[in-house]
Amino acid sequence: MKAGIIGASGYGGLELIRLLHGHSEVESLDLFTSSDEGIIFSHKYAHLMNIHDTPLHRIDLDHLASLDVVFTSTPSGVSSKLLPSLIGKGPRLIDLSGDFRLPEKEYEQWYKKEAAPVDALKQSVYGLTEWNRAQIKEAALVANPGCYPTAVLLSLLPAVKNKLIDASSLIIDAKSGVSGAGNKPSQLTHFSETNENLSIYKVNQHQHIPEIEQGLEFFSIKQQPITFSTHLVPMTRGILSAAYAPLSEGVTEKQLIECYKETYQDEPFVRFSSHGDKLGTNQVYGSNYCDIQLHLDPRTNRVTIVSVIDNLVKGAAGQAIQNMNLQFGFNEKTGLDVVPLFI
Amino acid sequence: MKAGIIGASGYGGLELIRLLHGHSEVESLDLFTSSDEGIIFSHKYAHLMNIHDTPLHRIDLDHLASLDVVFTSTPSGVSSKLLPSLIGKGPRLIDLSGDFRLPEKEYEQWYKKEAAPVDALKQSVYGLTEWNRAQIKEAALVANPGCYPTAVLLSLLPAVKNKLIDASSLIIDAKSGVSGAGNKPSQLTHFSETNENLSIYKVNQHQHIPEIEQGLEFFSIKQQPITFSTHLVPMTRGILSAAYAPLSEGVTEKQLIECYKETYQDEPFVRFSSHGDKLGTNQVYGSNYCDIQLHLDPRTNRVTIVSVIDNLVKGAAGQAIQNMNLQFGFNEKTGLDVVPLFI
Amino acid sequence: MKAGIIGASGYGGLELIRLLHGHSEVESLDLFTSSDEGIIFSHKYAHLMNIHDTPLHRIDLDHLASLDVVFTSTPSGVSSKLLPSLIGKGPRLIDLSGDFRLPEKEYEQWYKKEAAPVDALKQSVYGLTEWNRAQIKEAALVANPGCYPTAVLLSLLPAVKNKLIDASSLIIDAKSGVSGAGNKPSQLTHFSETNENLSIYKVNQHQHIPEIEQGLEFFSIKQQPITFSTHLVPMTRGILSAAYAPLSEGVTEKQLIECYKETYQDEPFVRFSSHGDKLGTNQVYGSNYCDIQLHLDPRTNRVTIVSVIDNLVKGAAGQAIQNMNLQFGFNEKTGLDVVPLFI
Amino acid sequence: MKAGIIGASGYGGLELIRLLHGHSEVESLDLFTSSDEGIIFSHKYAHLMNIHDTPLHRIDLDHLASLDVVFTSTPSGVSSKLLPSLIGKGPRLIDLSGDFRLPEKEYEQWYKKEAAPVDALKQSVYGLTEWNRAQIKEAALVANPGCYPTAVLLSLLPAVKNKLIDASSLIIDAKSGVSGAGNKPSQLTHFSETNENLSIYKVNQHQHIPEIEQGLEFFSIKQQPITFSTHLVPMTRGILSAAYAPLSEGVTEKQLIECYKETYQDEPFVRFSSHGDKLGTNQVYGSNYCDIQLHLDPRTNRVTIVSVIDNLVKGAAGQAIQNMNLQFGFNEKTGLDVVPLFI
Repeated sequence: MKAGIIGASGYGGLELIRLLHGHSEVESLDLFTSSDEGIIFSHKYAHLMNIHDTPLHRIDLDHLASLDVVFTSTPSGVSSKLLPSLIGKGPRLIDLSGDFRLPEKEYEQWYKKEAAPVDALKQSVYGLTEWNRAQIKEAALVANPGCYPTAVLLSLLPAVKNKLIDASSLIIDAKSGVSGAGNKPSQLTHFSETNENLSIYKVNQHQHIPEIEQGLEFFSIKQQPITFSTHLVPMTRGILSAAYAPLSEGVTEKQLIECYKETYQDEPFVRFSSHGDKLGTNQVYGSNYCDIQLHLDPRTNRVTIVSVIDNLVKGAAGQAIQNMNLQFGFNEKTGLDVVPLFI
Repeated sequence: MKAGIIGASGYGGLELIRLLHGHSEVESLDLFTSSDEGIIFSHKYAHLMNIHDTPLHRIDLDHLASLDVVFTSTPSGVSSKLLPSLIGKGPRLIDLSGDFRLPEKEYEQWYKKEAAPVDALKQSVYGLTEWNRAQIKEAALVANPGCYPTAVLLSLLPAVKNKLIDASSLIIDAKSGVSGAGNKPSQLTHFSETNENLSIYKVNQHQHIPEIEQGLEFFSIKQQPITFSTHLVPMTRGILSAAYAPLSEGVTEKQLIECYKETYQDEPFVRFSSHGDKLGTNQVYGSNYCDIQLHLDPRTNRVTIVSVIDNLVKGAAGQAIQNMNLQFGFNEKTGLDVVPLFI
Repeated sequence: MKAGIIGASGYGGLELIRLLHGHSEVESLDLFTSSDEGIIFSHKYAHLMNIHDTPLHRIDLDHLASLDVVFTSTPSGVSSKLLPSLIGKGPRLIDLSGDFRLPEKEYEQWYKKEAAPVDALKQSVYGLTEWNRAQIKEAALVANPGCYPTAVLLSLLPAVKNKLIDASSLIIDAKSGVSGAGNKPSQLTHFSETNENLSIYKVNQHQHIPEIEQGLEFFSIKQQPITFSTHLVPMTRGILSAAYAPLSEGVTEKQLIECYKETYQDEPFVRFSSHGDKLGTNQVYGSNYCDIQLHLDPRTNRVTIVSVIDNLVKGAAGQAIQNMNLQFGFNEKTGLDVVPLFI
Repeated sequence: MKAGIIGASGYGGLELIRLLHGHSEVESLDLFTSSDEGIIFSHKYAHLMNIHDTPLHRIDLDHLASLDVVFTSTPSGVSSKLLPSLIGKGPRLIDLSGDFRLPEKEYEQWYKKEAAPVDALKQSVYGLTEWNRAQIKEAALVANPGCYPTAVLLSLLPAVKNKLIDASSLIIDAKSGVSGAGNKPSQLTHFSETNENLSIYKVNQHQHIPEIEQGLEFFSIKQQPITFSTHLVPMTRGILSAAYAPLSEGVTEKQLIECYKETYQDEPFVRFSSHGDKLGTNQVYGSNYCDIQLHLDPRTNRVTIVSVIDNLVKGAAGQAIQNMNLQFGFNEKTGLDVVPLFI
């Protein structure tokens, strides 16, 4: 099959290139750019020497329409304009930005940008693979989930959907490596001010809040507003989410554990661990795994639900490829069956 | 005055050496060791070349009794045996370990070690400077607070004491740099497994949980059990604590802010900031400051209370020196009036 | 084919597991241990959950003899005792330690340990793939090169062999990430003392010095002693070597560049770049590539020859698999054709 | 005395603020800006809360002329225009940029910018404190040395000046933390591309090359061109320089060591260590020390001369204050007598 990426320079795009290189069903991969047409990609990114030495293509609808799948890994506000004209023109579309994840009003409120056309939004399907397979399979346009929502939803949905926890006042404290902020230099991501510094940012303002709330509602029940905090950790990759909620009346820890085991027992990329007192982002580094742990505190009857992902893989490019595999009928592990780097 | 440190090789000890070097009232500083007697300290720690080139002393009660102040920066279970015989023998005692912070039963439950003698425990005073000045001034033995409890208590006490938040189900999500784990190598602190890795550890099991609960009770009201998580962040110094609670009925954000401003307006080392959407550990790096921010979310009426400290300074050696200053009638800023490193 | 690893817990071993997982010709992989027999490997290393959930095997010669290839990734002084009895018993042996790289006398001088039996040493072949293919193909026992020597020799051999530089007083300044020090915790690799710290260590004493000198001699000419420095860089993976030498009389920069291009033009894993003013270890991160650059300074007529590798891949497990591929007649890229992580 | 800083936002400027805060002779410190007039500095840099809460001043010559000392910590090309009109107008001028370090022609060749007026250049004095005290004391304008040249010159001058090494083909391999690149975000200093990455850059092109060569000549003898490499290390602070040269004929290691000991025995900030096999940047972190080691290799008769500094202190703000102390007759340690952070 023939694949294309718009926004290859973004970290989601670079990660798509890395993972698709090992995908046995992808025979060609074209890279598109709005600004760097003709540039040899490996001159810009030396790690791609001898791997991608061909020039970047300009964004051309006919060219794009000739492909089987097109990924967009662009800043918010770009694919909302690019993709509508490609819907139904041939390629399956998988958008890694936030442009097709929220309804018009919520998008404009949280992203402070013009939303995608309503028609296009209606055709987009939320790409949380493990929870939305039927719809993703048929979708013309997949809105690939955000990195934080992926870690949070995979870890909370079993408990919330089965009403095993009281989700009326969910507290979610999430932490991310710096690559989540993208490839554009800024003071926030300037090495000397980011290294040896842990910071909390966008408290109660993060644009992933409505995406998480919508996801909890979509796959379970009407959701009360959540409290969601995000931190910037001095490392490149990785997200760790810790969520806090009381166990529902009469529910036991055993029931909770069983629920997670059953929900994810056949999933290739969600690993639930019922033991261990430590969970780290390095156990999923470079891989498509989401690892989940539960900790019930008998002193408070509250449960701490923790998950880790690699924000660039399960939180972006990996999940996008998993969705592609699903859409094209490949084994979902194709191209993604890698061992985490750990060190 | 004459000062001494038992446990100089520990990171708390090294930081005491660093800060006492700039203390105008300290004329001599003797270092004591149980294992390295006679060793030139700067041969072990090259950064002290030309600064501490004298041999380490063996632990000798007469020598210790001749000093004005003795700091113990030892692993748990050491000062509980060493200090009782020094109480009332001359020097003020300031213990940086956890040995004198908890009642006998709680200590043995959470530390899994034998507690200090009850007599000695009774004479120890909890050294949270800003909240316990009267007692600290007179104390023969100060139990210097733990790093996490310092960050948590300073940030929560104004709201809890004044009943501005509902403290019945406090969620506290704290994160620490690796120096908090001390100077003893282990797999947990091995560079290759700690770098580029954020991990959660000791969930619901951390020995600082009873210290925080006791602190909340001692300075405010009977406290319900808290939920407290700790994370290991790939950086050396710094703690960030994020605490979550509903505003109490009828309380406004303005009231909450005013309460913090009033509580800390004359404090030299607590900086409350009522604006800004970012708080990072680098703004207190190497200093004795504790910086605090509040964020009320009108969607949930829950408040996020965030604080940052340098775990080795305000969370250990700095607060110990602040307590010494208080005890000896010096300006509390003496030796501690330094600008954070930031970069 | 059936593969086995002795010393799976070492970082070389973990990296072999990671890379062999993606190797299409390896159908089984047994892990052997001297101390952890019966332990489920993924209980120790959570990143291997669902990947290696089987117990570790004890070291059993019959079991080992039944395999096609056995890798040893053990501390120095271990495989020298283990492997001699396996030579010629069936499996190809590839040793990632330093035990079979040096003659008896040099080994004992630099490693301060007893050398392997002379008979076994005689049968070992130095596994610098690109320079020793004929011998490696036939070898019963491959002494896989050290990480530093791999980076240094690949970058220097074309110039030295062709006498394009004056190699009589080679200065080599090399820098490594911390994973090169292995998985055993120590003060040197304790996060708090390694982070935010660049140090030089073992000046003129590093055990890779004789290996480099021997490699230069073996593949080119009688070599004068080199000056070789090693630094510990606060990062996990990566080696950068900078070597300095005068151009030989009458040689031009163009000749030098042509020599490197020709030498490596058909190599799958050595990428020579004749332009660019920056070379970083992240361009080979997680991959088997060795990237090389040359910089002639017309002011001095000296050339700076720089190379980068991932010490755990090209400097250890990757090169070992490349050697296995060569021995078994597979395409050398099998299992190793991955894109570097870069970010 | 009254001090002022132009370019307070730069890392040199922030470090001046940090160190001058602890300087007993400085009674006022005014901060000047070309772009942020009126801004409360602590609103931009939260670590200065309660420390510098006053507005930034616009650059006003009368205001500047009323001060006792003015530091310029500005990008190259700025102070060359600002300072000439202030020379002789009252304040001592200490420039932390490169604008007054080189002769006109060399400056324009290496900096690719217009040089300062020749008249002004003539009045500037190179501020390598330990080697130029007489001139610095009287100077109207001090050209404070660059960070790399400070580390290199302090470590090489004793040997070069006394002809103990053959300086005809000096190889200097230097490595720096990222703060040396300043506070302006760029791809080179973007966390995700700098973290876990060691890179070599500007090979043979660094603008500190002529400054080092000039320094070697100025304080010793006519110098042959050097080979000088610079690396970017994933840490914030610190420079380590390793220099390589043959011992001169007939010179012994003992002579070399004696020379260094004698040269620096009375220096407060240069610490020569004749033993130890490890030297790291953390032993000078945050301090004004330059630590030096020598390693003679009897196999090659070449010596490796290593030094470490904190690039922002001894390599910038600290040395500037040391020069100010010298000019005003204060003890050179005033404001600089701090213990390195180490951890």
